[in-house]
Amino acid sequence: MRNLDDNTITDAVIERVSGAPEPRTREICEALVRHLHAFCKEIRPTQQEWRQGINFLTRVGAMCSSTRQEFVLLSDILGVSMLVDAINHAAGGAQTETTVLGPFYVENAPEKALGSFIAEGLEGQPMLVEGSVSDYAGNPVAGAIVDVWHSDDEGFYDVQGEGGLADLTGRARFHADANGNFWFRSIVPRFYPIPYDGPVGDMLQAQRRHPYRPAHVHFMIAAPGFDTLVTHLFIGGSPYLDSDVVFGVKRELVVGLEPQPGGKTARGNTIDVDMQALRYDFVLAPV
Amino acid sequence: MRNLDDNTITDAVIERVSGAPEPRTREICEALVRHLHAFCKEIRPTQQEWRQGINFLTRVGAMCSSTRQEFVLLSDILGVSMLVDAINHAAGGAQTETTVLGPFYVENAPEKALGSFIAEGLEGQPMLVEGSVSDYAGNPVAGAIVDVWHSDDEGFYDVQGEGGLADLTGRARFHADANGNFWFRSIVPRFYPIPYDGPVGDMLQAQRRHPYRPAHVHFMIAAPGFDTLVTHLFIGGSPYLDSDVVFGVKRELVVGLEPQPGGKTARGNTIDVDMQALRYDFVLAPV
Repeated sequence: MRNLDDNTITDAVIERVSGAPEPRTREICEALVRHLHAFCKEIRPTQQEWRQGINFLTRVGAMCSSTRQEFVLLSDILGVSMLVDAINHAAGGAQTETTVLGPFYVENAPEKALGSFIAEGLEGQPMLVEGSVSDYAGNPVAGAIVDVWHSDDEGFYDVQGEGGLADLTGRARFHADANGNFWFRSIVPRFYPIPYDGPVGDMLQAQRRHPYRPAHVHFMIAAPGFDTLVTHLFIGGSPYLDSDVVFGVKRELVVGLEPQPGGKTARGNTIDVDMQALRYDFVLAPV
Repeated sequence: MRNLDDNTITDAVIERVSGAPEPRTREICEALVRHLHAFCKEIRPTQQEWRQGINFLTRVGAMCSSTRQEFVLLSDILGVSMLVDAINHAAGGAQTETTVLGPFYVENAPEKALGSFIAEGLEGQPMLVEGSVSDYAGNPVAGAIVDVWHSDDEGFYDVQGEGGLADLTGRARFHADANGNFWFRSIVPRFYPIPYDGPVGDMLQAQRRHPYRPAHVHFMIAAPGFDTLVTHLFIGGSPYLDSDVVFGVKRELVVGLEPQPGGKTARGNTIDVDMQALRYDFVLAPV
């Protein structure tokens, strides 16, 4: 195996990685080499461009921290995250549509009682969220674990602040009640740019793309016997619904805010001031 | 641009990145999206596998430092570095064959006088290196800048030690004389494993590959009017010449060590003890 050239090296490398004993590892490694080499053979990078590519990836790595995942952002803006989502969640079933997890999910968010206000320390337009969780047949999923998180009304997430993980707000974990219902109070989130002060931002700028996502609330809903649902509700009328930088918008997930006067709501919850209401009935797919 | 699925998302992303005003940037971004999506569509990663991929890249990034370039190692073991080398240096010309730069090159290595011993603090079998630099027509390239670096006789580079960049040895920069000749003294380097205590080592293990490179001395030779030559001389008879983990061996670069008794050599240099001699006449390509 000497004097490999651009005609022979791909097969030589594939032969080498094909020694992987685990079949799925072997399949992924062989495909990785084949597609990576095909990319290089098509663009024929100069040594200088190869070096720029290495430097770009190194900068992406250096931006990663406990509160910043630049590789997820890179996957998001190149449409890879939504492609993987599409591969794993074929449209058309009864279950709620899925979309990207995004880089701001935090494990073990604070647990709150139903009806709680989750936007401590934030100012903005009061928002009521009322939802339900059911199976394909419409039976409630009692006790489903509902994680929610969203930006503030300037478009920033809690973990982007100086306090990082020590200063969580605009996120919480709820348990749906015996009828599969949940509700909470917060503020209306705003559209926002993904963090663009790093190499992913530089790539967006080189591609003359804006870094914005339309306003949305993240949901992750889990219950025994069901696929964990990772999705958003997008705020109807928000800017950027048709040019989401991470390609994540689905029509079924765009929900209009409805004015809700203070008092008792149609779903039987009581609020003390007028709010903008976001309502959605989530459907989980069986495992 | 909503409800993209695995049939429509690739074109949507390509359309978005095609706004890059710089033609080469546009070409690279479009090809990147196309090949990256084709890879995903072929292997159909689960969400868990996508997460593993993100974690792998994040770990590669976290291993990078001023003396460790894990992305270069990754490029090396996947044959990308040698593919890019092959694309940029078609075989068959009069110039010396090229091979990978590797991760241990250091800018501004200490300048030494011809004949110097460059392996301060290292023990091993004494090695004499005698070389020349000429153009296609055989005319000497006077004053060519010759950077050399190699491992110690246990297979480690200076920058892998605790001292890092503060403790350089086994490397130097020379200026060829008026006849294009250079020489220096060192110790015979050993075959060695690339650093395998990180994610690249984990990938090699998953692929059941050894991490070794055959023994070699790195050269980078530069002179005005010529392409900078990046190459190695491999020590003839070294283990792993036929299974170099980075696919870098070329027959023309494998050179036997010749016993050289102390005294004056055929090339007119004088050494005081018996040494193993490594000799090569490098030919530079015009710019």
